[in-house]
Amino acid sequence: MKRVLVTGATGFIGRHALPLLAERGYEVHGVGSADGDLLDPAAAESLVRRVRPSHLLHFAWYAVPGKFWSAPENAAWVEASIHLLRAFADAGGERATISGSCAEYEWSGHVLSEATTPLRPATYYGVSKHALAQVGEGLAKERGFGFAWGRIFFTYGPHEQPGRLVSQIAQALVKGEPAPTSEGAQRRDFLYAGDVADAFVALLDSGVEGAVNVGSGAAVPVRDVVSLIAETAGRPELVGWGEVPARPGDPPVIEADVTRLREEVGWRPSTPLDEGIRETVEWWKTNA
Amino acid sequence: MKRVLVTGATGFIGRHALPLLAERGYEVHGVGSADGDLLDPAAAESLVRRVRPSHLLHFAWYAVPGKFWSAPENAAWVEASIHLLRAFADAGGERATISGSCAEYEWSGHVLSEATTPLRPATYYGVSKHALAQVGEGLAKERGFGFAWGRIFFTYGPHEQPGRLVSQIAQALVKGEPAPTSEGAQRRDFLYAGDVADAFVALLDSGVEGAVNVGSGAAVPVRDVVSLIAETAGRPELVGWGEVPARPGDPPVIEADVTRLREEVGWRPSTPLDEGIRETVEWWKTNA
Repeated sequence: MKRVLVTGATGFIGRHALPLLAERGYEVHGVGSADGDLLDPAAAESLVRRVRPSHLLHFAWYAVPGKFWSAPENAAWVEASIHLLRAFADAGGERATISGSCAEYEWSGHVLSEATTPLRPATYYGVSKHALAQVGEGLAKERGFGFAWGRIFFTYGPHEQPGRLVSQIAQALVKGEPAPTSEGAQRRDFLYAGDVADAFVALLDSGVEGAVNVGSGAAVPVRDVVSLIAETAGRPELVGWGEVPARPGDPPVIEADVTRLREEVGWRPSTPLDEGIRETVEWWKTNA
Repeated sequence: MKRVLVTGATGFIGRHALPLLAERGYEVHGVGSADGDLLDPAAAESLVRRVRPSHLLHFAWYAVPGKFWSAPENAAWVEASIHLLRAFADAGGERATISGSCAEYEWSGHVLSEATTPLRPATYYGVSKHALAQVGEGLAKERGFGFAWGRIFFTYGPHEQPGRLVSQIAQALVKGEPAPTSEGAQRRDFLYAGDVADAFVALLDSGVEGAVNVGSGAAVPVRDVVSLIAETAGRPELVGWGEVPARPGDPPVIEADVTRLREEVGWRPSTPLDEGIRETVEWWKTNA
């Protein structure tokens, strides 16, 4: 019997994972921020002892837009995640998969690869995720459970918190409000939230160990994403191109090398950008 | 009023720190493994709330010889140390200094420098210490407290746990037992435990931020150290030179670049090797 504990199960990505895990024959226990608090060590232990999961899919983290990059809460989540992993090992857990980030990499290289890109995070979020990756991977080796670390690139979709690129533009346009944006020449690797969840489920269910990029493998100009949102919402006149200055030092390209994800995990995206943007704009129409 | 909480205060290094801190005008609160358990988050918080330290000198860690390099307990100590730092910040702490290790560095370079040597630990102990360094340094920046990280090289002295290089040879010789050893051509940077503690106290009491090597700056052949122990103990005939094979991949030289320690902290060692070894052998005569 495969029994999986999913944290962040009510979140932007995690909510998609639950039915996908059930389809693969897992008994699914999902916890969101309402179900106890993973930041409370005793509550986390009691959760793991109650569920006795064979598998762990850990998405929960501090994610307040604009704040998460440098928030001290990142330290609390490193601590809580190590505690959760230790409790999981103590309860006989067999395989854990945790969400990492492309922010763990140095961003000068355009195409970011698990094997060759230096791990030199520029933000406290990236530092903290990468510290957890290292401690978690070593703990798995010493305690004898399987461990995979999925590095997420740029995710979009329904239920995204307001204030991030896609959510901000989509929300403004469906409300009929102006949407200031940059010129958008920078290219980013976008993946639909449902596809991100599907890739994590495939990764958890595989025997692949260590860090694996979770992206589309094809970066697109931010301009194209904003244009798609504007066309889908029918309000292209509300986009204020160039009204947001380019961030100094913002890299021109951030793209995932998805060789491991494709060839070792055997996973490919299934949601084209136009379809994902349509789902996202539709969602904002009833949630803006 | 400077009030310092010292963890690992009954340990090999920490025990020397207490009087040195008192001499510098600190009100000193030292805790060893007997005083509550830092691995219990609630006990650690209650300790910090009770002491309300302005300064933190954190030496405590899992240190069982032969086991600490790869023990899963390293993860527990990363977790506990983040918890301690967060509680320290919550209680208004102003400056923390924590013990790191030369094992955080890649060991191919002979002279290891904070500024230029790659941080590529080969052991889980090194990985875990380095993960804590990164999470701690970022937390200090975001929460606004001072933070220094002392990277310890090869420490020796009284009270060392049996089973490490100097303690093993010294204990065997004062008991009149054979002491098998390697040829000892490899050079290591040794520093007397009292000097290590003194350097940490100077670092804590300085305004120096970030990682600082704590070593002598002059690596000596292990053979010379073993010979000194044997002469001091008066039993050179018991040393079995070459009876322990050289470890494959063991680097020929590990030496600290001590530029930061000398020039920024203004600290230099005060215990010559022969004097430190004499103290150590004397101690083993009554404790073997």
